[in-house]
Amino acid sequence: MTIEQALADLSSVLGERLTRSASDRALHGQSESYFAQTPPDAVAYPETAEEVARIVTTCAAHGCPVIPFGAGTSLEGHTTPIRGGLTVDFARMNRVLEVHPEDMDAVVQPGITRQALNEDLRATGLFFPVDPGANASIGGMAATRASGTTTVRYGSMRDNVLGLQVVLADGRIIRTGTRARKSAAGYDLTHLFIGSEGTLGLITELTLRLHGQPEAISAAVCAFSDIGGAVDTVMATIQMGIPMARIEFIDTETVNAVNAYSNMSLPLKPHLLVEFHGSDLSVAEDARRLGELVEEFGGEGFRWSTQAEDRNALWTMRHNAYFAILASRKGARAVVTDLCVPISRLAEAVEETRADIADSPIPGPILGHVGDGNFHAILMIRDDEPQELETARALSARMVDRALRMGGTVTGEHGVGMGKLDYMEAEHGQGWQVMGEIKRALDPQNILNPGKVVRTN
Amino acid sequence: MTIEQALADLSSVLGERLTRSASDRALHGQSESYFAQTPPDAVAYPETAEEVARIVTTCAAHGCPVIPFGAGTSLEGHTTPIRGGLTVDFARMNRVLEVHPEDMDAVVQPGITRQALNEDLRATGLFFPVDPGANASIGGMAATRASGTTTVRYGSMRDNVLGLQVVLADGRIIRTGTRARKSAAGYDLTHLFIGSEGTLGLITELTLRLHGQPEAISAAVCAFSDIGGAVDTVMATIQMGIPMARIEFIDTETVNAVNAYSNMSLPLKPHLLVEFHGSDLSVAEDARRLGELVEEFGGEGFRWSTQAEDRNALWTMRHNAYFAILASRKGARAVVTDLCVPISRLAEAVEETRADIADSPIPGPILGHVGDGNFHAILMIRDDEPQELETARALSARMVDRALRMGGTVTGEHGVGMGKLDYMEAEHGQGWQVMGEIKRALDPQNILNPGKVVRTN
Ligand SMILES: Cc1cc2nc3c(=O)[nH]c(=O)nc-3n(C[C@H](O)[C@H](O)[C@H](O)COP(=O)(O)OP(=O)(O)OC[C@H]3O[C@@H](n4cnc5c(N)ncnc54)[C@H](O)[C@@H]3O)c2cc1C
Ligand SMILES: Cc1cc2nc3c(=O)[nH]c(=O)nc-3n(C[C@H](O)[C@H](O)[C@H](O)COP(=O)(O)OP(=O)(O)OC[C@H]3O[C@@H](n4cnc5c(N)ncnc54)[C@H](O)[C@@H]3O)c2cc1C
Repeated sequence: MTIEQALADLSSVLGERLTRSASDRALHGQSESYFAQTPPDAVAYPETAEEVARIVTTCAAHGCPVIPFGAGTSLEGHTTPIRGGLTVDFARMNRVLEVHPEDMDAVVQPGITRQALNEDLRATGLFFPVDPGANASIGGMAATRASGTTTVRYGSMRDNVLGLQVVLADGRIIRTGTRARKSAAGYDLTHLFIGSEGTLGLITELTLRLHGQPEAISAAVCAFSDIGGAVDTVMATIQMGIPMARIEFIDTETVNAVNAYSNMSLPLKPHLLVEFHGSDLSVAEDARRLGELVEEFGGEGFRWSTQAEDRNALWTMRHNAYFAILASRKGARAVVTDLCVPISRLAEAVEETRADIADSPIPGPILGHVGDGNFHAILMIRDDEPQELETARALSARMVDRALRMGGTVTGEHGVGMGKLDYMEAEHGQGWQVMGEIKRALDPQNILNPGKVVRTN
Repeated sequence: MTIEQALADLSSVLGERLTRSASDRALHGQSESYFAQTPPDAVAYPETAEEVARIVTTCAAHGCPVIPFGAGTSLEGHTTPIRGGLTVDFARMNRVLEVHPEDMDAVVQPGITRQALNEDLRATGLFFPVDPGANASIGGMAATRASGTTTVRYGSMRDNVLGLQVVLADGRIIRTGTRARKSAAGYDLTHLFIGSEGTLGLITELTLRLHGQPEAISAAVCAFSDIGGAVDTVMATIQMGIPMARIEFIDTETVNAVNAYSNMSLPLKPHLLVEFHGSDLSVAEDARRLGELVEEFGGEGFRWSTQAEDRNALWTMRHNAYFAILASRKGARAVVTDLCVPISRLAEAVEETRADIADSPIPGPILGHVGDGNFHAILMIRDDEPQELETARALSARMVDRALRMGGTVTGEHGVGMGKLDYMEAEHGQGWQVMGEIKRALDPQNILNPGKVVRTN
């Protein structure tokens, strides 16, 4: 019963698609964010669900941990093989299997990235809306219950996956859900696997809900003298039912970083970046109504446009904000926090966090999907200042407390991985035990991504 | 270890709120639809989650089945105490605990009905949209993953519950979810309990997502010479992104029944009933665009209105359709089928079903939430014609096969109960075993609504 035996058995099945090269292991042992480099014993590149099942049964027979891997963009050490074992990289399972334009759905393999999928869909007039910024894999996005800039309008992975094919810890291959839009046929296994971070099964196929590409798009940007004005504008927009497709907040520190990184010259104030999807008429009307609210809540420099160039510049800037922030402090790594609170508490949550970070010695620009009440402080720490990690952890712990006190959650979208494990009990109480009981029922040997989401002892 | 001992112990705790009266037991032993009368040993009316926990632990100690009960409107024998035991009726836990207008959410007890809830919300400008026709309880609706006429726009219970309080089989009281709009904090327990039909836990509180009452509403009705024209109109409407709030189909047989029951004189043809929510301008525009499509697909008699009287008449007629159908055959009971297929297969599914019923000796009007691909044939059987139940079962089995063959589900919204148990394996394959494994993990004694959804031996 050793990892070595499992790998030896598998190498005869997978040939070169099982690799132990140092570079490949290193690549799969690193992590976005601040976790220590921890390479797996080997990396497998399966091509079919049957191969995945074979991998899992072989690993189970030898007690070898199995860590599913999509694009590796997760932020909480999700893919770190803390007990060694085999990383299963879905890069070679990256095809679109079926597109049903009349039903607005598609069946895809887990390794396809969201950008590749949308390239593929372009000609159909449909698109897959969930946009976590990073070019993540669809399987990884389902496994982390990802959301992003467009969730305020189109929902998260929770809302846009109709069904899954999953390989379980004992090698059974099951299907959950159907292509029907809804079902009441028993326990919702689809949603059980969405957000389970590779700890309950390996997703080998997904049936996705697609949406019509909007006829017209308008984008708008504006500045505020304080956070409160920006958040009040968001709340009023939601309450008036103005259908935003995206509404993003970036604070002054983030503006500073993106100005430098993207060679822009936004005023050094908190900003909202907004997008509307609809008809030529409706997106103009939506932008106009937003403009009125912005004025009412003391915003300034309101501009909007339906030009693709303007829009692309805006969202490229937003998508690069994380890298802009990373670049703003030499040699620094990020501890990315991820709170989500009821929208009525958002201004308070952001302001308290802002003040808390200002009192600390480390920088921490704030940005977020404010339409969902979700925001991130990107706490920038340097390895050569060892006490900074502790400072960041303390700030993060206070943010978590704040979120729970306000009726929110410790992670709006990034997930638990290792980084949020310590907060699970505070959020879920005995519910966390129940998660452990489900884990034990489905993976009694604890071979699937051990050490993440739940504790099993 | 007997049911008697459990009831004796509980009666000292609950006093008069534990009843063994014949009438109360009979009331909780009957079922909508065709299942045999099977009274429980007693009925409890708890007032708090703690009382529910006390009930469950006492019953667990004595091996007494516990059957949660909302409004008793479920259609597949869900609340039938097939192994006896204690029915837990949530009628006394029917309060709205909190409403947060700024966050558009509310916290309610499970026993409140959807109509009572919406009465309560009226002054806030908000409403809870899920509408299964019957005046079901919110707890029962969550437990069956109910949907209804407005699901095409607002989603089902799956989409409109943010969190739950649940009493587990061992008496633990857990909370799932938060008031935040989204979360990636571990396994999605909320969705595990939604649709679990009282077999995994008793829901004692729900946090619901609310929506703004529309500024304006328009409703439209039209006839078609065949089913295909009606369904093609639905598909085109969806593909053009015309945002329907409701789109219902009733076939000629249903029209016949409602004409008689509601004293109306709709032409004897398949009909669509549609509703739009929005601004004065948008609902007029939406109705106009629908009118164009109706004409294109050969519809006739298209009328629309923004008057509340017209709209109420229309939806009262639709909500009474089930009773109109029941009344259309003297002494008959209903076997209600509930398929949901990808919308591209809907016309075919309805037409094949129509033809199959026409070839049989029993009547079976068809109606449905066609925007979701969901429809029902109400198979009307008489007890004094004993072979009719067999005929209905055979028709139903063929409908189920048809749904699965077309990529759909055996129950779009009514759930499994006892009636769909035999089809679970066909739909889920080994996934059904996984449901059983989850049941065993959370209710190893099988005391919560035994005999429903899963098989435990
Ligand atoms: C700049 C930047 C911005 C980001 N912004 C957002 C954001 O806005 N919203 C958001 O939600 N996230 C965001 N993230 C985090 C990250 O992009 C998401 O968590 C994403 O969903 C991870 O997908 P991945 O393919 O990279 O998964 P990975 O990192 O490879 O894996 C993530 C987890 O899923 C599991 N997994 C992967 N594939 C499978 C599979 N096929 N079956 C079972 N389990 C699997 C892994 O074991 C792991 O636990 C951001 C990250 C970065 C770097
Ligand atoms: C005329 C008519 C039309 C209908 N139309 C629709 C429709 O359009 N869409 C639809 O979805 N359904 C429809 N139904 C079916 C029914 O209304 C739904 O299934 C409804 O959700 C049942 O709610 P209830 O409160 O009556 O639950 P009950 O019938 O009392 O119980 C249903 C199930 O939920 C469990 N349960 C109840 N309360 C709780 C609780 N608090 N905790 C845990 N478990 C609980 C019970 O044990 C049982 O398994 C219709 C029924 C009728 C009679």
